[in-house]
Amino acid sequence: MSDAMTPPSSTSPAAVAANDLAAAEVAAAAAALATPFVQSLVRLLRAQDGFGAWEGRSDAKLLAPYIVTREQRRAMPIMGDPSPEVLWRVEQYYGAVGLAIEHHTGLVASPMIQMHHEGFGRVILTVGKLVVLSRHLRDVHRFGFESLAALAAGGEKLVAGCVATIETYPEVARA
Amino acid sequence: MSDAMTPPSSTSPAAVAANDLAAAEVAAAAAALATPFVQSLVRLLRAQDGFGAWEGRSDAKLLAPYIVTREQRRAMPIMGDPSPEVLWRVEQYYGAVGLAIEHHTGLVASPMIQMHHEGFGRVILTVGKLVVLSRHLRDVHRFGFESLAALAAGGEKLVAGCVATIETYPEVARA
Repeated sequence: MSDAMTPPSSTSPAAVAANDLAAAEVAAAAAALATPFVQSLVRLLRAQDGFGAWEGRSDAKLLAPYIVTREQRRAMPIMGDPSPEVLWRVEQYYGAVGLAIEHHTGLVASPMIQMHHEGFGRVILTVGKLVVLSRHLRDVHRFGFESLAALAAGGEKLVAGCVATIETYPEVARA
Repeated sequence: MSDAMTPPSSTSPAAVAANDLAAAEVAAAAAALATPFVQSLVRLLRAQDGFGAWEGRSDAKLLAPYIVTREQRRAMPIMGDPSPEVLWRVEQYYGAVGLAIEHHTGLVASPMIQMHHEGFGRVILTVGKLVVLSRHLRDVHRFGFESLAALAAGGEKLVAGCVATIETYPEVARA
């Protein structure tokens, strides 16, 4: 009886491996969702949910548009005009970097994004008189990350770099 | 005979005063045109004259759209969407501030402008990791200056402020 209750697929070695992989992915996603950067991003997205349309939506579901797998990317045109939705996601992404900087240092970071309609541009984050991040953007119409873990790792790395710059020039950041 | 050759209007006291005023205005305009800031602005405008449409145009004529007198301003609507032409002029104006900064310090200043279509926005100028200018813009559809002298004085004042900021934090401007 107990054998019959276990689904047959989970007893094969391949199925066990697949289950382990799925469990590892779930753990990685949970760890990613708990990072200060991703938490900042979620807070920022939810803060704009004025109509409560996303109230029943999980954080992972909310962040789903940020995940663009290799296959999805390959299916997108190499050149393309970014949609207002993707531009908004890019803005929120760098806004979340700014919010996480504030969380770490107590200093407000303002993002400024200048985009050409063909999908390239520049983003900078300033704290006081200090430029803590300056990046050229390209292929914005394909903006996204392979996984939640990659989204979190990328954001955390940017935040760490910004915080280090503030620690190098604290008087300029407070100017 | 010599009396007849002089136009009669210039002999009346009022006409003499008007002539003096006109002469003072011409001198002020010439002084304004010679300032490093206005020279930078003229260079920047001419650099974009790819078709040679402005070749025969004097500097004063080229800068004429920057002059908005009190009467002209009063005739404009208080609220208004800025035209692409006025946005372009604002960009060139802050670009000229950047060019003049480079002239004074040898350091390249990059402007970044973020505009809302309703005519407000923000402009910043960065040199290295240093924010040398940060201004909120408003009423951009009415952007302009009372006279060439006012255009020059405003620009020179911005440039001086930026150069002073660079001198306060030279290591950040070179970072």
